[in-house]
Amino acid sequence: MTEESSTPRPSGPTVGIIGGGQLARMMLEAASALAIDARLLATTTDEAAPGMWPHTSVVEDLDDGAIGEFALECDVLTFDHELVDPEVLEALERHGHVLRPGARALSFSDKAEQRVLLAAAGLPVPRFAVVHDLDELEGFVASVGGWPVVMKPPRGGYDGRGVHVVTTPEAGLAVLEGTGGTVVVEEFLELDAELAVVVVTRASGGQVRYPVMQTVQVDGICHIVTCPAPLDEPLLTEADRIAAAVAEIVNAVGVLAVELFVHNGRVLVNEVAPRPHNSGHLTIEACVTSQFENHLRAVLDWPLGRTDLVGPAAAMVNIIGEAGTGNPATNITEALSVRGAHVHFYGKSWREGRKLGHVTALGPDVASAEAVAQQALDALHSR
Amino acid sequence: MTEESSTPRPSGPTVGIIGGGQLARMMLEAASALAIDARLLATTTDEAAPGMWPHTSVVEDLDDGAIGEFALECDVLTFDHELVDPEVLEALERHGHVLRPGARALSFSDKAEQRVLLAAAGLPVPRFAVVHDLDELEGFVASVGGWPVVMKPPRGGYDGRGVHVVTTPEAGLAVLEGTGGTVVVEEFLELDAELAVVVVTRASGGQVRYPVMQTVQVDGICHIVTCPAPLDEPLLTEADRIAAAVAEIVNAVGVLAVELFVHNGRVLVNEVAPRPHNSGHLTIEACVTSQFENHLRAVLDWPLGRTDLVGPAAAMVNIIGEAGTGNPATNITEALSVRGAHVHFYGKSWREGRKLGHVTALGPDVASAEAVAQQALDALHSR
Repeated sequence: MTEESSTPRPSGPTVGIIGGGQLARMMLEAASALAIDARLLATTTDEAAPGMWPHTSVVEDLDDGAIGEFALECDVLTFDHELVDPEVLEALERHGHVLRPGARALSFSDKAEQRVLLAAAGLPVPRFAVVHDLDELEGFVASVGGWPVVMKPPRGGYDGRGVHVVTTPEAGLAVLEGTGGTVVVEEFLELDAELAVVVVTRASGGQVRYPVMQTVQVDGICHIVTCPAPLDEPLLTEADRIAAAVAEIVNAVGVLAVELFVHNGRVLVNEVAPRPHNSGHLTIEACVTSQFENHLRAVLDWPLGRTDLVGPAAAMVNIIGEAGTGNPATNITEALSVRGAHVHFYGKSWREGRKLGHVTALGPDVASAEAVAQQALDALHSR
Repeated sequence: MTEESSTPRPSGPTVGIIGGGQLARMMLEAASALAIDARLLATTTDEAAPGMWPHTSVVEDLDDGAIGEFALECDVLTFDHELVDPEVLEALERHGHVLRPGARALSFSDKAEQRVLLAAAGLPVPRFAVVHDLDELEGFVASVGGWPVVMKPPRGGYDGRGVHVVTTPEAGLAVLEGTGGTVVVEEFLELDAELAVVVVTRASGGQVRYPVMQTVQVDGICHIVTCPAPLDEPLLTEADRIAAAVAEIVNAVGVLAVELFVHNGRVLVNEVAPRPHNSGHLTIEACVTSQFENHLRAVLDWPLGRTDLVGPAAAMVNIIGEAGTGNPATNITEALSVRGAHVHFYGKSWREGRKLGHVTALGPDVASAEAVAQQALDALHSR
């Protein structure tokens, strides 16, 4: 009896996925039915995707040597995350490798670049500045009428990591010193709501967008996503229009998620992520085509699938490691006894605050769907 | 850079799937989100599942040595097909391994046993006999009023293989000689329709059933499945009632599919398959919980998921290798340009008559759904 990993592969194009997190895992779940020859490049086996895909390479670092070697066996490279060194990405493109999204669009994950480019394009964003020292910070604070302000590093922060609501010069100085000298600072806004739009752009052009989602963040981490977002139609239309424009400005390919603030009846761009996104997880069951399938279709330059909801409403809640409750996966049977709950685990080991999975439910309205998803989540976190 | 297959595994129960065909592949696609520790035992890498699952063992034969060794690492064993030697299965149970379904239910895939047991239980079946020579065959033919009759071997036949419509004693003798001496013979019926009911039984008891499907067979191979079946409600209720009874009689665990004839306004049991079934493939998109997820939940003794349709109607067409058209996978982009078509390939190499995948579509009614699925299928078979 032999462990066998060099089995025949599909004859279609080869997609290399860089990064082995849950986004990669859900892409691979979608790749199977399309018989896409998908390969995975990961840096550790202690994450979501390597344990469920045979065509996985594990390397020490995602440096130019490792990615360059991996790229040789792939027709197209795409990404689980945007944490690869931009210079490595640019070098890959110079050597003729096909990156989707491309290095330019990926660099747009830099929050300083995002804000500058979007503001220059006339899109509504919170008032912001890119600051390097306390003088510049205090100048910005004065210009927006005083503390508090929000400070975040241009790169590497996600799920709220590195985002600080700062109320004093001392705290601002500490953030500046802790983040290497360049910080994005923006006005602190009381929000009416947060929205997200998942946009998909095919490599040769052509864009589809999912219905506008409402997201609920706690400490910067997405906890709940619901669809349709329960806001007035003009606001939703504006969110959709802005997201479409952002994807064009960025030259996006594949999924790009646009996170939006609603403040005083206006829609503002918060952040942009050039990849499948937590706000789109509910599309697996709730939409005709999931964001993961559409991402693969887009980067392969295949026709995109329908994005409309299959039912009236849907909700998703994240399964996040909680102190004192142990691994929620051990309670899966209790969660599955909640009728209509779709439980997704990512195969990750438990850690407090870690996204371990999510639960989606459909329903006749958002409240019903959310109640089902929440009931299953409570069951997972029981004991 | 190393090919890595010994990655951390989910902490849940270990399910061993015996057989590496498309049913195993679709079970594994469902296993991923539930973080089930699934392992696969296959006899060749040239089939559907081994290429997409890292925890795969490939052996020469599914004999007692190979399965016995595999069983040691699994909490529960289940099956992609029913072609394992019944004596091997009984020996496994004697050694304390957990087979779901069990050896008894699997032996029910013997068509002679099926007919005898179901008839004894008072369920409606076509008139039949188990015959061993020409005398017995001609006696049966006389009892049903003459030729033609249908002859099939008790085991190993599926997708119409081995099923003969026989019109003369000479042809009957040839079938007897070709199949080792025991043949099931039954009356030839003009059919009003064929139906299928997918039943799921949880290991500790409790049964759910999917809506009754209509199937269209060509030369014994399933080509089209639609739901809801467009027949009068009393016939559908009768089909559902019969299927529920069959699963109980068989002591089914997991998915059991009951194929039914409708003849002269009566529902008769045709065949029973103790596993996920082609007639249930559309449940992946069309029902709240797919037959593959529910099969895993059932064999793990987890609560079963909802089986109702998520929309008004659905249709599935099989992608079957056709002479003269080459591998349909090369036309996938044309098929994906058909809006609403869900294309599933199984990663198998092309062979004429081989089931290579399927296409599902949902719609406001069966005709619309079938038209979409058929349009995508035509695109796959073009050129």
